Amino acid sequence: MFEVKATDLAGRVGKLRTKSGVLETPCILPVVHPARQSIAPREMAKLGFDAVMTNAYITLKVFGKMAEEKGIHKIIDYDGTIMTDSGGYQLLKYGNIDVTPKEMAVFQEKIGSDMALVLDTPTGIDVDRRRASETIRITLKAAKETLESAKGGGTLWVGPIQGGSYLDLLKKSAELTGKMRFDIFALGSPTEVMEAYNFVLLAKMIITTKQALPIDKPLHLFGAGHPLTIPLAVALGCDLFDSASYILYAREGRYITDYGTARLDELTYLPCNCPVCSEYTLKEIENLEFEERIQRIAVHNLNVLSKEIRTTKQAIRDGRLWEYLGIKAKAHPRLWHAFNLLGDYGKFLEDGTPSFKPKAIFFYEHNDLVRPEALRHHRKVLEDLSMVRKKLLVLPESDVKPFYKSSFYTRLAKALGNALEDFQVCFLTLPFGMVPLELSDVYPLSQYLSSLKPDRHVMGETLKHIREFVSKNAFERIILLDLPDACSPIFKKMARSIKNCHKIDATGSDLDRVVRDINGARKPSFLDFLA
Amino acid sequence: MFEVKATDLAGRVGKLRTKSGVLETPCILPVVHPARQSIAPREMAKLGFDAVMTNAYITLKVFGKMAEEKGIHKIIDYDGTIMTDSGGYQLLKYGNIDVTPKEMAVFQEKIGSDMALVLDTPTGIDVDRRRASETIRITLKAAKETLESAKGGGTLWVGPIQGGSYLDLLKKSAELTGKMRFDIFALGSPTEVMEAYNFVLLAKMIITTKQALPIDKPLHLFGAGHPLTIPLAVALGCDLFDSASYILYAREGRYITDYGTARLDELTYLPCNCPVCSEYTLKEIENLEFEERIQRIAVHNLNVLSKEIRTTKQAIRDGRLWEYLGIKAKAHPRLWHAFNLLGDYGKFLEDGTPSFKPKAIFFYEHNDLVRPEALRHHRKVLEDLSMVRKKLLVLPESDVKPFYKSSFYTRLAKALGNALEDFQVCFLTLPFGMVPLELSDVYPLSQYLSSLKPDRHVMGETLKHIREFVSKNAFERIILLDLPDACSPIFKKMARSIKNCHKIDATGSDLDRVVRDINGARKPSFLDFLA
Repeated sequence: MFEVKATDLAGRVGKLRTKSGVLETPCILPVVHPARQSIAPREMAKLGFDAVMTNAYITLKVFGKMAEEKGIHKIIDYDGTIMTDSGGYQLLKYGNIDVTPKEMAVFQEKIGSDMALVLDTPTGIDVDRRRASETIRITLKAAKETLESAKGGGTLWVGPIQGGSYLDLLKKSAELTGKMRFDIFALGSPTEVMEAYNFVLLAKMIITTKQALPIDKPLHLFGAGHPLTIPLAVALGCDLFDSASYILYAREGRYITDYGTARLDELTYLPCNCPVCSEYTLKEIENLEFEERIQRIAVHNLNVLSKEIRTTKQAIRDGRLWEYLGIKAKAHPRLWHAFNLLGDYGKFLEDGTPSFKPKAIFFYEHNDLVRPEALRHHRKVLEDLSMVRKKLLVLPESDVKPFYKSSFYTRLAKALGNALEDFQVCFLTLPFGMVPLELSDVYPLSQYLSSLKPDRHVMGETLKHIREFVSKNAFERIILLDLPDACSPIFKKMARSIKNCHKIDATGSDLDRVVRDINGARKPSFLDFLA
Repeated sequence: MFEVKATDLAGRVGKLRTKSGVLETPCILPVVHPARQSIAPREMAKLGFDAVMTNAYITLKVFGKMAEEKGIHKIIDYDGTIMTDSGGYQLLKYGNIDVTPKEMAVFQEKIGSDMALVLDTPTGIDVDRRRASETIRITLKAAKETLESAKGGGTLWVGPIQGGSYLDLLKKSAELTGKMRFDIFALGSPTEVMEAYNFVLLAKMIITTKQALPIDKPLHLFGAGHPLTIPLAVALGCDLFDSASYILYAREGRYITDYGTARLDELTYLPCNCPVCSEYTLKEIENLEFEERIQRIAVHNLNVLSKEIRTTKQAIRDGRLWEYLGIKAKAHPRLWHAFNLLGDYGKFLEDGTPSFKPKAIFFYEHNDLVRPEALRHHRKVLEDLSMVRKKLLVLPESDVKPFYKSSFYTRLAKALGNALEDFQVCFLTLPFGMVPLELSDVYPLSQYLSSLKPDRHVMGETLKHIREFVSKNAFERIILLDLPDACSPIFKKMARSIKNCHKIDATGSDLDRVVRDINGARKPSFLDFLA
């Protein structure tokens, strides 16, 4: 039913089979009103949306029994995949509705929903802990009743996770709901969190939920339709989104851009090239008749969201989701804040990150030192490898990759001859720390591009890894071949603070001198005995 | 002729009047071949390009005298603005051409070029210093001959700057050419630099040139048609670009994206929503007949470049060019490297940065501490202001802005009563350091959003500014009101390292206690006399 095709970080491209077709995830389901909808779902299909979300509760209220005969696909005139919400939002907003979870379960199957939601009791955000617990309890009961009432017939059932911003409650809700036989899970009511751009809390909510749920089921995030939310939520493991943002924003004159939203009256240009923005100038859009203007902005908004999903999926395929998230994070300080916390979830993000990627990865600055590829390298070097030789020869990284193909190394190896066999050779790199020669052509150790400089943070982290590596392998002798290079300050610090470290100036063309220095430093000197 | 409408950093939105119309800058002039052009210039106008670049030398070779009768606008069937190149590129590529600068000057005016280039001798990149000097000398001679031969008649003459990567030579060339009566200047031959993504060198070349040229004339950058080059070059003061990248890339199957280029066969999705990418799927484009495919990709490429220009112009209007550059810089480590060097050109970037902007500015991390608004604040506080009161009361920044409207400050001010008049009140903010209360509602001191954390770099810079401020104003007494807050570690350091600093714990609701502590700390204590 759900098949994962490609992954990066905790994000994934998947195929979800419903009775109306196959969806590629991650995908956004635009919310359509069952009765009053200005952009027809068929139009949305042309914009690249293969599924929509509509409301079964409103359908019941407006169409009554007639809906069961016609079916939801006829009602909204759409033969693609339809997810139905079931009144939980109305419950949150108006406090009470006049149907039971059982009734909504039966109704949703009768109208032929492809994916249907339990009539849940959303937690909301400004509630106390007691109330949050209660929403979990009520929702779990509704979930149980729904699965008992569901007859099968191809509807995929979506299990809602409650708990709001109480992460421990969220975890409990996810664990309990995760044990039930739902096809899809859904994280409830982060709307206020997203509206406040509280990406840190959003990230924690998603990670908490995701870690407690079965990995093989898709996770839906309610109400996410913002160009900054999508890549973050995808990277943390959300597969499905529904959103009415395209039309809600349009009604407020809000125009979605790649990096946020702007009111039309704040713009001088249309920073977009979608068919709407190619056909109309900003002035022309502003001068459109009211309903027509909303319509045009809404179609533009959908175009941007559709592009956002495709760009994010491409980033997963390229293995560049971390980089893409970094770009997006630079669009808002609060997203940047969340991006900088991702290092705290290293293992979680590492699991989905492939060991081999089609493209080189990019390092920019210290916050990239915790990307999964770097963490994986440190673990591999510390835990999986044991160095037999007790003399270590360290060279700085080179532009040429793999490093052992650099002209300096090849000339040195020739000049050292048999003496080289005494040494474990490592290359010191700023993103990865110590790279044993044997690993230096394994992905990504020769497939990266870095603009890291040895600032205090990078120095500190790199030295920490070096110390662990050196102490684990108990090298008797460490020879550093110093070249004028980004690594030079680190060599200096190593020579000063790590025992048995000998720094040799390797500049200049006199390789014989360098070899003599290495040979001289190979054997413990008299001074070492004193130390 | 050239009028600046809006500025940010060294970037500007301007109006350039040519005899064929008014251009809004920055703008890209797609390069069209005078005889073999697949996308008609009229088509380009529809994509948002109000000017094109074509080659007068090729026009002369293909059409001969006939070109003078017809005129270049008829030849390429375009009534918008046309800039003509004059064979310098051919000279660089083939070493020799059979016309003189004088002939090309007369010819370009006869064919009715709106903007015409001196037949220059481009420096190129892999040349020695002697040759670089020589290209400057020859180009200056050609420039002089061109201006002497030009009859007027409405053609704007473009003066080429040579020197390649020899920055001192570039400066000299710009100074000498800048004194001649050109309407526009052009920075020559950075093509190889851009192809190598050497954004650091490119930035230095542009800044060097720009600083030596008259500010009121537009600067053209040759051959820039990459989505990462444009925002950087604009931010550093380039107004015009010409590029054949749209078609050259298309011929190699390279598809321009917002963040670089990708070969079509590397893509699974089209990360774009332009009319081409909305009409065709990736598969459909791949299956097009050869010439048609190139054509479609080229139109797509033009769409992305057109959007890039509009997005960059909007960023200038919004006063968010620094932020936009930061986003783009995250797309490639080498651009990130260049972005991180911009602090070295603080004054240069500050001149064009307005003191008041329509939107709040964003701070992400330490490299934003050198953005012009922060540098300007430090100078204002250090040079323009003199503090009369010799007692300083420091509060941490608050989410409420202006800070003096925070509930803590208003309650404290009430509780302190007249005693407050003894104090200069300052708020400590991470991006700006000390903000005197009197300035705290002046832009941008209450119009910014920051995700800065007091990491070692931010701490160090902030403390440096604080020390300068404190020592310049010779405060006798400094009282720090410490709250659990991002500023707290800085208060701790200040209390330890700055004389006469008294840190008072301001947490808790007992404001009377805080007031007593402040009053107690106001007067020098016995211990101070000993110190």
